[in-house]
Amino acid sequence: MKTRVTELLGTRYPIVQGGMQWVGTAELASAVSNAGALGILTALTQPTPEALRAEVRRCREMTDKPFGVNLTILPKIDPVPYDEYLQAALEEGVKVIETAGRSPEPYMPLIKAAGAKVIHKCTSVRHSVKAEQVGCDAVSVDGFECAGHPGEDDVPNLVLIPAAAAKLSVPIIASGGIGNGAQMAAAFALGAEGINMGTRFMATREAPIHENLKRAIVAGDERSTALVYRTLRNTARIYRNQIAEQVLAIESREGPTDFKEIQPLVAGTRGRDAAVRGGDVDGGVWTAGMVMGVIDDIPSCAELIERLVADARAAADRSTRLLG
Amino acid sequence: MKTRVTELLGTRYPIVQGGMQWVGTAELASAVSNAGALGILTALTQPTPEALRAEVRRCREMTDKPFGVNLTILPKIDPVPYDEYLQAALEEGVKVIETAGRSPEPYMPLIKAAGAKVIHKCTSVRHSVKAEQVGCDAVSVDGFECAGHPGEDDVPNLVLIPAAAAKLSVPIIASGGIGNGAQMAAAFALGAEGINMGTRFMATREAPIHENLKRAIVAGDERSTALVYRTLRNTARIYRNQIAEQVLAIESREGPTDFKEIQPLVAGTRGRDAAVRGGDVDGGVWTAGMVMGVIDDIPSCAELIERLVADARAAADRSTRLLG
Repeated sequence: MKTRVTELLGTRYPIVQGGMQWVGTAELASAVSNAGALGILTALTQPTPEALRAEVRRCREMTDKPFGVNLTILPKIDPVPYDEYLQAALEEGVKVIETAGRSPEPYMPLIKAAGAKVIHKCTSVRHSVKAEQVGCDAVSVDGFECAGHPGEDDVPNLVLIPAAAAKLSVPIIASGGIGNGAQMAAAFALGAEGINMGTRFMATREAPIHENLKRAIVAGDERSTALVYRTLRNTARIYRNQIAEQVLAIESREGPTDFKEIQPLVAGTRGRDAAVRGGDVDGGVWTAGMVMGVIDDIPSCAELIERLVADARAAADRSTRLLG
Repeated sequence: MKTRVTELLGTRYPIVQGGMQWVGTAELASAVSNAGALGILTALTQPTPEALRAEVRRCREMTDKPFGVNLTILPKIDPVPYDEYLQAALEEGVKVIETAGRSPEPYMPLIKAAGAKVIHKCTSVRHSVKAEQVGCDAVSVDGFECAGHPGEDDVPNLVLIPAAAAKLSVPIIASGGIGNGAQMAAAFALGAEGINMGTRFMATREAPIHENLKRAIVAGDERSTALVYRTLRNTARIYRNQIAEQVLAIESREGPTDFKEIQPLVAGTRGRDAAVRGGDVDGGVWTAGMVMGVIDDIPSCAELIERLVADARAAADRSTRLLG
């Protein structure tokens, strides 16, 4: 398969693994890359820049194919040494950096000097245009369907991708709500030249999360997510478990939301580890997207990608035939 | 073009005009039908069943092609004689009834006895399955993007259509967020065999609304809508004007929303006529969808449909080529 995205990434298929905190380790990234797509290590999954450096090396031992590093830039109480994480990845020869959260503008000189490419993740047309202006090589357009942070505009990909495509010259990677071949073909019809999948890769054999979470994704459907932190204007789509319901109850109460009340429910490693590692699906906050509505199994990354590509071709052919 | 939807409707193209209150008159419906799609008269735009009968006759004088009648069944303070509206349409020989709002089950014997087909509009997979079970001939699957009532689940078409397609045998008409050929091709890739467009048909030369509203749709983008009445669990997506902002402000206040406070802002014919007929874009509540983000002109219905079909074929071809 050949699109501007495969050429940019040096991959067989124009498919990118979503940058998922705690999930984007060498196990998953190498499996995705070995299957012909672009695996992504998430920088901040590693406690230090040096640990990221070690993870890049570990990943390289597990695959000889390209993989990328995601750097999610968010305001934090404790300052994060983003430059050092980035430097570690670039020094280790990583050639694709996915940025998210904030404009990558301050980091562009560093990345470009290392000869690496930048994909920036955006949830709006205006941010996509800005990303192109500051020199990003591709934009990952993230619709309202997505897991994690969809922004505050709530524009789904059926509208967001063609609206962005009308304004952009760089290639678009469609992100959010995509888990099967029909959706990949739809994204291409809308103007994308690649896709990004997060939740779908969580439900693969190689994803380093507890089997119970994978089963919860398979059992869940398009209504099994919740949008939390809307009152804080930091909306996040997560798996709708008991904790999500408790957060929603706090946010729906009168007056401004006090994050101090939510924090004990969601923060720290206890809840996250209970869910992601310990398998307590209700024990912590964890991210999943509406694409659960089309996820029915837990294949290997290679099986998933081959099936997806075959189904995408079949869906595009069917579409062409019916429209003919 | 030949799909199960063209065969069901007897139209050249599998394109249906959305059932739009105050907009679905003989002028628009006949123009859409003459252009090869299915025009739709909205029953309740007419004050009485007899007036609907006259409108059907008027439409028939303006086109010899098939057109349908939309019957939106909603709880009202003043009871609406739905049976009589339906009877009037069927007696006048209308062969396609689009139902929305509530399950059409009570009306199925009447419609089927007249040899007419039923398309039911649904915003969820479970309602789509129910519609098929009660004998509907097609389901119009209406995603979160749509103008009017998207339901309370907020599932966009990129996920909703394939999730519904996995469960349905009857053909799917994709509705909500569709206004150009790329989106039509995407809907087909997702499993639909037809599309429904409302807002896009409002911005046509033949739509019986004030030119100012058409210009507002062209000027608006994917962020120019608002979701109101969410607190009443009767969510509606409308054009985001001053009145929409006022309703949102009332709804965001603490405690349950008192509809009596909203009613003077939105109800009655003054506001609606000020907008739809009088051209005061801020003078009343009126409906428009996120598809404004891809609407840039005010063509005739025939120009629109021919361009849409050509662009859909081009988008499907491009998709097939890139995926090949």
